[in-house]
Amino acid sequence: MKRQTGKAVILLSGGLDSATAAAVAKNDGLDLYAMTFSYGQRHSIEIGCARKIALFFRAADHVFIDIPSGVFRSALLKNSPAGVPKNRSLDEASIPDTYVPARNIIFLSYALAYGESIGARDIYIGANAVDYSGYPDCRPSFFESFTAMANAGTRAGIEGSPFIIHTPLISLKKSEIIRLGMSLGVDYSITHSCYDPDASGVSCGTCDSCRLRKMGFAEAGFDDPIPYRL
Amino acid sequence: MKRQTGKAVILLSGGLDSATAAAVAKNDGLDLYAMTFSYGQRHSIEIGCARKIALFFRAADHVFIDIPSGVFRSALLKNSPAGVPKNRSLDEASIPDTYVPARNIIFLSYALAYGESIGARDIYIGANAVDYSGYPDCRPSFFESFTAMANAGTRAGIEGSPFIIHTPLISLKKSEIIRLGMSLGVDYSITHSCYDPDASGVSCGTCDSCRLRKMGFAEAGFDDPIPYRL
Repeated sequence: MKRQTGKAVILLSGGLDSATAAAVAKNDGLDLYAMTFSYGQRHSIEIGCARKIALFFRAADHVFIDIPSGVFRSALLKNSPAGVPKNRSLDEASIPDTYVPARNIIFLSYALAYGESIGARDIYIGANAVDYSGYPDCRPSFFESFTAMANAGTRAGIEGSPFIIHTPLISLKKSEIIRLGMSLGVDYSITHSCYDPDASGVSCGTCDSCRLRKMGFAEAGFDDPIPYRL
Repeated sequence: MKRQTGKAVILLSGGLDSATAAAVAKNDGLDLYAMTFSYGQRHSIEIGCARKIALFFRAADHVFIDIPSGVFRSALLKNSPAGVPKNRSLDEASIPDTYVPARNIIFLSYALAYGESIGARDIYIGANAVDYSGYPDCRPSFFESFTAMANAGTRAGIEGSPFIIHTPLISLKKSEIIRLGMSLGVDYSITHSCYDPDASGVSCGTCDSCRLRKMGFAEAGFDDPIPYRL
Protein backbone atom coordinates (compact mmCIF):
# COMPACT_ATOMS: atom_id res chain seq x y z
CA MET A 1 0.00 0.00 0.00
CA LYS A 2 1.28 3.46 -0.79
CA ARG A 3 2.25 5.75 2.06
CA GLN A 4 1.49 9.44 2.08
CA THR A 5 3.63 10.96 4.80
CA GLY A 6 6.43 9.63 6.94
CA LYS A 7 4.12 9.38 9.93
CA ALA A 8 1.87 6.61 11.13
CA VAL A 9 -0.69 6.62 13.91
CA ILE A 10 -0.51 3.28 15.72
CA LEU A 11 -3.17 2.14 18.17
CA LEU A 12 -1.28 0.47 21.01
CA SER A 13 -3.21 -1.57 23.55
CA GLY A 14 -0.21 -3.14 25.20
CA GLY A 15 -1.11 -6.51 23.73
CA LEU A 16 0.69 -8.83 21.38
CA ASP A 17 -1.27 -7.90 18.28
CA SER A 18 -0.83 -4.13 18.45
CA ALA A 19 2.87 -4.55 19.28
CA THR A 20 3.20 -6.60 16.10
CA ALA A 21 1.26 -4.02 14.08
CA ALA A 22 3.66 -1.36 15.43
CA ALA A 23 6.59 -3.44 14.21
CA VAL A 24 5.01 -3.63 10.75
CA ALA A 25 4.53 0.16 10.61
CA LYS A 26 8.10 0.70 11.75
CA ASN A 27 9.29 -1.79 9.15
CA ASP A 28 7.27 0.15 6.54
CA GLY A 29 9.63 3.06 7.30
CA LEU A 30 7.23 5.24 9.24
CA ASP A 31 7.66 7.25 12.42
CA LEU A 32 5.21 6.05 15.00
CA TYR A 33 2.67 8.28 16.76
CA ALA A 34 1.12 6.02 19.36
CA MET A 35 -2.35 6.26 20.90
CA THR A 36 -3.45 4.28 23.93
CA PHE A 37 -6.94 4.30 25.40
CA SER A 38 -8.11 3.59 28.91
CA TYR A 39 -11.77 2.87 29.29
CA GLY A 40 -12.28 1.22 32.64
CA GLN A 41 -10.26 -1.86 31.82
CA ARG A 42 -10.02 -4.37 34.65
CA HIS A 43 -6.38 -3.48 35.18
CA SER A 44 -3.81 -0.93 34.11
CA ILE A 45 -1.06 -3.44 33.33
CA GLU A 46 -1.73 -3.15 29.64
CA ILE A 47 -1.33 0.64 29.77
CA GLY A 48 2.13 0.14 31.25
CA CYS A 49 2.94 -2.38 28.52
CA ALA A 50 1.76 0.07 25.84
CA ARG A 51 4.20 2.60 27.28
CA LYS A 52 7.07 0.09 27.11
CA ILE A 53 6.18 -0.89 23.56
CA ALA A 54 6.12 2.76 22.40
CA LEU A 55 9.55 3.28 23.95
CA PHE A 56 10.80 0.02 22.40
CA PHE A 57 9.83 1.29 18.93
CA ARG A 58 11.10 4.85 19.66
CA ALA A 59 7.67 6.39 19.00
CA ALA A 60 7.82 10.12 18.16
CA ASP A 61 4.85 10.75 20.46
CA HIS A 62 2.43 8.81 22.63
CA VAL A 63 -1.05 10.12 23.40
CA PHE A 64 -3.21 8.65 26.17
CA ILE A 65 -6.96 9.03 25.94
CA ASP A 66 -9.39 8.42 28.77
CA ILE A 67 -12.78 7.21 27.69
CA PRO A 68 -15.28 7.75 30.49
CA SER A 69 -16.54 4.49 31.94
CA GLY A 70 -20.28 4.32 31.63
CA VAL A 71 -20.16 4.91 27.89
CA PHE A 72 -19.33 1.28 27.24
CA ARG A 73 -20.98 -1.70 28.90
CA SER A 74 -19.40 -5.11 28.52
CA ALA A 75 -17.97 -8.07 30.43
CA LEU A 76 -14.51 -6.61 29.87
CA LEU A 77 -15.16 -3.55 31.99
CA LYS A 78 -14.54 -3.27 35.70
CA ASN A 79 -18.05 -2.17 36.57
CA SER A 80 -19.67 -5.06 34.72
CA PRO A 81 -21.59 -7.58 36.84
CA ALA A 82 -20.66 -10.42 34.45
CA GLY A 83 -17.30 -12.09 35.00
CA VAL A 84 -14.74 -12.73 32.29
CA PRO A 85 -15.75 -15.89 30.40
CA LYS A 86 -13.38 -18.79 31.08
CA ASN A 87 -12.63 -21.92 29.10
CA ARG A 88 -15.51 -21.39 26.72
CA SER A 89 -15.38 -22.66 23.15
CA LEU A 90 -13.31 -20.41 20.95
CA ASP A 91 -15.25 -21.53 17.91
CA GLU A 92 -18.47 -19.73 18.79
CA ALA A 93 -19.58 -17.67 15.83
CA SER A 94 -21.80 -15.39 17.90
CA ILE A 95 -20.61 -12.06 19.25
CA PRO A 96 -18.74 -12.71 22.54
CA ASP A 97 -19.77 -11.14 25.86
CA THR A 98 -16.46 -9.31 25.80
CA TYR A 99 -17.73 -7.24 22.87
CA VAL A 100 -17.46 -3.55 23.77
CA PRO A 101 -19.95 -1.35 21.86
CA ALA A 102 -18.28 0.75 19.17
CA ARG A 103 -14.84 0.38 20.75
CA ASN A 104 -12.76 0.27 17.58
CA ILE A 105 -15.01 2.92 16.03
CA ILE A 106 -14.15 5.34 18.83
CA PHE A 107 -10.46 4.41 18.79
CA LEU A 108 -10.17 4.92 15.06
CA SER A 109 -12.15 8.15 15.20
CA TYR A 110 -9.60 9.55 17.64
CA ALA A 111 -6.86 8.29 15.34
CA LEU A 112 -8.38 10.31 12.48
CA ALA A 113 -8.44 13.50 14.58
CA TYR A 114 -4.88 12.92 15.76
CA GLY A 115 -3.67 11.92 12.31
CA GLU A 116 -5.25 14.91 10.62
CA SER A 117 -3.77 17.22 13.27
CA ILE A 118 -0.21 15.92 12.92
CA GLY A 119 -0.29 15.27 9.17
CA ALA A 120 -0.37 11.47 9.31
CA ARG A 121 -2.62 9.60 6.91
CA ASP A 122 -1.58 6.04 7.69
CA ILE A 123 -3.30 4.44 10.65
CA TYR A 124 -2.23 1.00 11.88
CA ILE A 125 -4.43 -1.20 14.00
CA GLY A 126 -3.68 -4.75 15.11
CA ALA A 127 -7.19 -6.01 14.50
CA ASN A 128 -7.62 -9.64 13.62
CA ALA A 129 -10.56 -11.29 11.92
CA VAL A 130 -9.44 -14.88 12.46
CA ASP A 131 -9.40 -15.25 16.22
CA TYR A 132 -11.90 -12.43 16.78
CA SER A 133 -14.37 -13.12 14.00
CA GLY A 134 -17.19 -12.59 16.47
CA TYR A 135 -16.43 -8.89 16.89
CA PRO A 136 -18.17 -6.81 14.21
CA ASP A 137 -15.50 -4.12 14.48
CA CYS A 138 -12.66 -6.53 13.67
CA ARG A 139 -13.99 -7.61 10.27
CA PRO A 140 -12.58 -6.47 6.91
CA SER A 141 -15.98 -5.14 5.84
CA PHE A 142 -15.99 -2.81 8.84
CA PHE A 143 -12.54 -1.40 8.05
CA GLU A 144 -13.52 -0.79 4.41
CA SER A 145 -16.62 0.99 5.55
CA PHE A 146 -14.70 3.01 8.15
CA THR A 147 -12.15 4.11 5.55
CA ALA A 148 -14.91 5.30 3.21
CA MET A 149 -16.52 7.22 6.07
CA ALA A 150 -13.20 8.74 7.14
CA ASN A 151 -12.51 10.04 3.68
CA ALA A 152 -16.03 11.42 3.28
CA GLY A 153 -15.94 13.22 6.64
CA THR A 154 -12.50 14.81 6.93
CA ARG A 155 -10.67 17.63 5.22
CA ALA A 156 -7.87 15.21 4.37
CA GLY A 157 -10.23 12.86 2.57
CA ILE A 158 -12.15 15.62 0.77
CA GLU A 159 -8.99 17.38 -0.34
CA GLY A 160 -7.39 14.31 -1.90
CA SER A 161 -5.02 13.19 0.83
CA PRO A 162 -7.01 10.20 2.05
CA PHE A 163 -6.55 8.10 5.15
CA ILE A 164 -5.45 4.51 4.82
CA ILE A 165 -6.38 2.14 7.64
CA HIS A 166 -3.73 -0.59 7.75
CA THR A 167 -4.79 -3.90 9.25
CA PRO A 168 -1.66 -5.97 8.65
CA LEU A 169 -2.82 -8.80 10.93
CA ILE A 170 -6.41 -9.00 9.74
CA SER A 171 -6.15 -12.43 8.10
CA LEU A 172 -3.35 -13.97 10.16
CA LYS A 173 -3.71 -16.74 12.72
CA LYS A 174 -2.19 -16.02 16.13
CA SER A 175 0.80 -18.24 15.34
CA GLU A 176 1.39 -16.32 12.11
CA ILE A 177 1.21 -13.00 13.97
CA ILE A 178 3.83 -14.27 16.42
CA ARG A 179 6.08 -15.52 13.61
CA LEU A 180 5.75 -12.15 11.86
CA GLY A 181 6.55 -10.26 15.05
CA MET A 182 9.53 -12.49 15.86
CA SER A 183 10.90 -11.89 12.35
CA LEU A 184 10.60 -8.14 12.99
CA GLY A 185 12.28 -8.33 16.39
CA VAL A 186 9.28 -7.72 18.67
CA ASP A 187 10.05 -8.22 22.36
CA TYR A 188 6.91 -10.06 23.47
CA SER A 189 8.03 -10.02 27.10
CA ILE A 190 6.72 -6.43 27.31
CA THR A 191 3.28 -7.33 25.95
CA HIS A 192 0.23 -8.35 27.96
CA SER A 193 -2.79 -10.34 26.80
CA CYS A 194 -4.66 -11.65 29.87
CA TYR A 195 -8.18 -10.39 30.62
CA ASP A 196 -7.86 -11.43 34.27
CA PRO A 197 -4.35 -11.15 35.73
CA ASP A 198 -3.67 -11.46 39.47
CA ALA A 199 -2.69 -8.53 41.69
CA SER A 200 0.97 -8.84 40.77
CA GLY A 201 0.13 -8.82 37.05
CA VAL A 202 0.62 -12.52 36.33
CA SER A 203 -1.62 -13.79 33.54
CA CYS A 204 -4.32 -16.32 34.39
CA GLY A 205 -3.62 -18.70 31.53
CA THR A 206 -7.26 -19.72 31.13
CA CYS A 207 -9.18 -16.73 29.72
CA ASP A 208 -9.84 -16.62 25.98
CA SER A 209 -7.00 -14.24 25.42
CA CYS A 210 -4.41 -16.28 27.36
CA ARG A 211 -5.44 -19.50 25.64
CA LEU A 212 -5.17 -17.97 22.18
CA ARG A 213 -1.75 -16.59 23.05
CA LYS A 214 -0.43 -19.87 24.51
CA MET A 215 -1.69 -21.88 21.55
CA GLY A 216 -0.20 -19.30 19.18
CA PHE A 217 3.26 -19.51 20.68
CA ALA A 218 3.12 -23.31 20.77
CA GLU A 219 2.03 -23.49 17.13
CA ALA A 220 4.61 -20.92 16.05
CA GLY A 221 7.33 -22.93 17.77
CA PHE A 222 8.51 -20.16 20.12
CA ASP A 223 8.59 -19.91 23.90
CA ASP A 224 6.15 -17.38 25.33
CA PRO A 225 8.37 -15.12 27.47
CA ILE A 226 5.64 -14.25 30.02
CA PRO A 227 4.67 -16.29 33.11
CA TYR A 228 1.19 -17.80 33.72
CA ARG A 229 -0.68 -18.93 36.85
CA LEU A 230 -2.04 -22.02 35.06
CA MET B 1 -38.33 7.41 9.26
CA LYS B 2 -39.20 4.39 11.39
CA ARG B 3 -38.15 4.33 15.02
CA GLN B 4 -36.85 1.24 16.72
CA THR B 5 -37.01 1.92 20.43
CA GLY B 6 -38.50 4.68 22.52
CA LYS B 7 -35.08 6.16 23.15
CA ALA B 8 -33.03 8.69 21.21
CA VAL B 9 -29.46 9.80 21.72
CA ILE B 10 -29.27 13.55 21.12
CA LEU B 11 -25.99 15.40 20.72
CA LEU B 12 -26.43 18.67 22.58
CA SER B 13 -23.86 21.41 22.10
CA GLY B 14 -25.83 24.13 23.83
CA GLY B 15 -26.41 25.86 20.50
CA LEU B 16 -29.53 26.74 18.59
CA ASP B 17 -29.29 23.89 16.10
CA SER B 18 -28.91 21.02 18.56
CA ALA B 19 -31.70 22.46 20.74
CA THR B 20 -33.94 22.39 17.69
CA ALA B 21 -32.89 18.83 16.84
CA ALA B 22 -33.75 17.85 20.43
CA ALA B 23 -37.21 19.36 19.96
CA VAL B 24 -37.67 17.29 16.80
CA ALA B 25 -36.65 14.07 18.60
CA LYS B 26 -39.02 14.89 21.48
CA ASN B 27 -41.79 15.65 18.98
CA ASP B 28 -41.07 12.25 17.36
CA GLY B 29 -42.17 10.74 20.68
CA LEU B 30 -38.76 9.65 21.94
CA ASP B 31 -37.16 9.89 25.38
CA LEU B 32 -33.99 11.89 25.13
CA TYR B 33 -30.57 10.65 26.23
CA ALA B 34 -28.32 13.67 25.85
CA MET B 35 -24.58 13.73 25.22
CA THR B 36 -22.45 16.85 25.52
CA PHE B 37 -18.76 17.06 24.70
CA SER B 38 -16.12 19.41 25.99
CA TYR B 39 -12.95 19.57 23.94
CA GLY B 40 -11.11 22.70 24.94
CA GLN B 41 -13.78 25.07 23.69
CA ARG B 42 -12.97 28.71 24.26
CA HIS B 43 -15.60 28.93 26.99
CA SER B 44 -17.86 26.70 29.02
CA ILE B 45 -21.01 28.78 28.52
CA GLU B 46 -22.28 26.36 25.92
CA ILE B 47 -21.90 23.43 28.36
CA GLY B 48 -24.14 25.27 30.80
CA CYS B 49 -26.65 25.92 28.02
CA ALA B 50 -26.59 22.24 27.05
CA ARG B 51 -27.48 21.41 30.66
CA LYS B 52 -30.41 23.83 30.60
CA ILE B 53 -31.66 22.49 27.28
CA ALA B 54 -31.54 18.88 28.55
CA LEU B 55 -33.57 19.92 31.60
CA PHE B 56 -35.98 21.90 29.40
CA PHE B 57 -36.70 18.74 27.37
CA ARG B 58 -36.78 16.50 30.48
CA ALA B 59 -33.97 14.29 29.16
CA ALA B 60 -33.87 10.84 30.79
CA ASP B 61 -30.09 11.10 31.14
CA HIS B 62 -27.28 13.47 30.21
CA VAL B 63 -23.72 12.25 29.69
CA PHE B 64 -20.74 14.62 29.56
CA ILE B 65 -17.63 13.53 27.71
CA ASP B 66 -14.25 15.19 27.97
CA ILE B 67 -12.17 14.98 24.85
CA PRO B 68 -8.52 15.67 25.69
CA SER B 69 -7.31 18.91 24.18
CA GLY B 70 -4.36 18.24 21.95
CA VAL B 71 -6.27 15.67 19.92
CA PHE B 72 -7.91 18.39 17.88
CA ARG B 73 -6.20 21.44 16.43
CA SER B 74 -8.30 24.28 15.08
CA ALA B 75 -9.04 28.01 15.40
CA LEU B 76 -12.01 27.10 17.60
CA LEU B 77 -9.85 25.72 20.37
CA LYS B 78 -8.43 27.67 23.26
CA ASN B 79 -4.83 26.65 22.64
CA SER B 80 -4.92 27.71 19.00
CA PRO B 81 -2.69 30.62 18.00
CA ALA B 82 -5.16 31.76 15.33
CA GLY B 83 -8.02 33.97 16.46
CA VAL B 84 -11.65 33.37 15.63
CA PRO B 85 -12.31 34.67 12.09
CA LYS B 86 -14.46 37.81 12.12
CA ASN B 87 -16.65 39.35 9.45
CA ARG B 88 -15.32 37.09 6.72
CA SER B 89 -17.49 36.15 3.75
CA LEU B 90 -19.96 33.44 4.63
CA ASP B 91 -20.07 32.29 1.04
CA GLU B 92 -16.61 30.77 0.99
CA ALA B 93 -16.83 27.24 -0.34
CA SER B 94 -13.51 26.19 1.14
CA ILE B 95 -13.22 24.45 4.50
CA PRO B 96 -13.23 27.16 7.22
CA ASP B 97 -10.40 27.60 9.74
CA THR B 98 -12.88 26.64 12.42
CA TYR B 99 -12.96 23.10 11.04
CA VAL B 100 -12.07 20.66 13.82
CA PRO B 101 -10.57 17.37 12.58
CA ALA B 102 -13.00 14.45 12.86
CA ARG B 103 -15.15 16.24 15.43
CA ASN B 104 -18.54 14.91 14.37
CA ILE B 105 -16.96 11.50 13.71
CA ILE B 106 -15.84 11.26 17.34
CA PHE B 107 -19.13 12.65 18.68
CA LEU B 108 -21.20 10.17 16.67
CA SER B 109 -18.88 7.30 17.58
CA TYR B 110 -19.55 7.98 21.25
CA ALA B 111 -23.25 8.18 20.44
CA LEU B 112 -23.07 4.68 18.95
CA ALA B 113 -21.39 3.27 22.07
CA TYR B 114 -23.89 5.02 24.34
CA GLY B 115 -26.84 4.10 22.14
CA GLU B 116 -25.86 0.46 21.92
CA SER B 117 -25.35 0.33 25.70
CA ILE B 118 -28.75 1.79 26.57
CA GLY B 119 -30.71 0.21 23.73
CA ALA B 120 -31.23 3.35 21.64
CA ARG B 121 -30.90 3.11 17.86
CA ASP B 122 -31.99 6.62 16.90
CA ILE B 123 -29.32 9.28 17.05
CA TYR B 124 -30.19 12.93 16.47
CA ILE B 125 -27.64 15.52 15.48
CA GLY B 126 -28.32 19.15 14.58
CA ALA B 127 -25.88 19.21 11.68
CA ASN B 128 -26.63 21.57 8.86
CA ALA B 129 -25.30 21.44 5.32
CA VAL B 130 -26.58 24.83 4.21
CA ASP B 131 -24.76 27.26 6.50
CA TYR B 132 -21.88 24.85 7.15
CA SER B 133 -21.34 23.42 3.69
CA GLY B 134 -17.61 23.90 4.16
CA TYR B 135 -17.39 21.28 6.89
CA PRO B 136 -16.93 17.79 5.44
CA ASP B 137 -18.57 16.22 8.49
CA CYS B 138 -21.79 18.22 8.04
CA ARG B 139 -22.60 16.94 4.56
CA PRO B 140 -25.31 14.37 3.74
CA SER B 141 -22.75 12.10 2.05
CA PHE B 142 -20.81 11.91 5.31
CA PHE B 143 -23.87 10.93 7.34
CA GLU B 144 -24.80 8.22 4.84
CA SER B 145 -21.29 6.89 4.99
CA PHE B 146 -21.23 7.05 8.80
CA THR B 147 -24.51 5.13 9.02
CA ALA B 148 -23.17 2.37 6.76
CA MET B 149 -20.03 2.15 8.88
CA ALA B 150 -22.02 2.11 12.12
CA ASN B 151 -24.15 -0.77 10.96
CA ALA B 152 -21.13 -2.72 9.69
CA GLY B 153 -19.18 -2.26 12.92
CA THR B 154 -21.65 -2.79 15.77
CA ARG B 155 -23.57 -5.72 17.18
CA ALA B 156 -26.79 -3.75 16.69
CA GLY B 157 -26.12 -3.28 12.99
CA ILE B 158 -24.96 -6.85 12.40
CA GLU B 159 -27.88 -8.36 14.29
CA GLY B 160 -30.55 -6.49 12.36
CA SER B 161 -31.35 -3.62 14.71
CA PRO B 162 -29.56 -0.87 12.80
CA PHE B 163 -28.75 2.65 13.87
CA ILE B 164 -30.47 5.57 12.20
CA ILE B 165 -28.68 8.90 12.22
CA HIS B 166 -31.30 11.62 12.11
CA THR B 167 -30.23 14.96 10.68
CA PRO B 168 -33.53 16.84 10.72
CA LEU B 169 -31.90 20.21 10.02
CA ILE B 170 -29.52 19.08 7.31
CA SER B 171 -31.16 20.97 4.45
CA LEU B 172 -32.74 23.86 6.34
CA LYS B 173 -31.61 27.47 6.27
CA LYS B 174 -31.03 29.09 9.67
CA SER B 175 -34.34 30.95 9.42
CA GLU B 176 -36.15 27.67 8.71
CA ILE B 177 -34.47 26.01 11.68
CA ILE B 178 -35.67 28.85 13.90
CA ARG B 179 -39.21 28.68 12.52
CA LEU B 180 -39.24 24.91 13.11
CA GLY B 181 -37.95 25.33 16.65
CA MET B 182 -40.44 28.09 17.46
CA SER B 183 -43.27 25.88 16.20
CA LEU B 184 -42.04 23.15 18.58
CA GLY B 185 -41.76 25.51 21.54
CA VAL B 186 -37.97 25.77 21.83
CA ASP B 187 -36.81 28.40 24.34
CA TYR B 188 -33.92 29.97 22.43
CA SER B 189 -33.00 32.19 25.39
CA ILE B 190 -31.17 29.17 26.88
CA THR B 191 -29.11 28.54 23.73
CA HIS B 192 -25.70 29.96 22.91
CA SER B 193 -24.09 30.39 19.49
CA CYS B 194 -21.17 32.84 19.79
CA TYR B 195 -17.61 31.65 19.20
CA ASP B 196 -16.20 34.60 21.14
CA PRO B 197 -18.37 35.79 24.06
CA ASP B 198 -17.08 38.27 26.67
CA ALA B 199 -16.27 37.31 30.25
CA SER B 200 -19.89 37.68 31.34
CA GLY B 201 -21.05 35.43 28.50
CA VAL B 202 -22.48 38.10 26.21
CA SER B 203 -22.25 37.18 22.52
CA CYS B 204 -19.96 39.24 20.28
CA GLY B 205 -22.43 39.66 17.42
CA THR B 206 -19.74 39.62 14.74
CA CYS B 207 -18.33 36.08 14.52
CA ASP B 208 -19.67 33.76 11.81
CA SER B 209 -21.94 32.02 14.25
CA CYS B 210 -23.47 35.21 15.68
CA ARG B 211 -24.04 36.67 12.23
CA LEU B 212 -25.78 33.54 10.98
CA ARG B 213 -27.98 33.51 14.06
CA LYS B 214 -28.93 37.20 13.85
CA MET B 215 -29.71 36.96 10.14
CA GLY B 216 -31.72 33.78 10.80
CA PHE B 217 -33.92 35.41 13.43
CA ALA B 218 -34.41 38.50 11.27
CA GLU B 219 -35.39 36.41 8.26
CA ALA B 220 -37.67 34.16 10.32
CA GLY B 221 -39.43 37.25 11.71
CA PHE B 222 -38.74 36.51 15.38
CA ASP B 223 -36.83 38.46 18.03
CA ASP B 224 -33.60 36.80 19.12
CA PRO B 225 -34.00 36.56 22.93
CA ILE B 226 -30.25 36.82 23.69
CA PRO B 227 -28.20 40.06 24.05
CA TYR B 228 -25.23 41.01 21.82
CA ARG B 229 -22.27 43.36 22.28
CA LEU B 230 -22.54 44.62 18.68
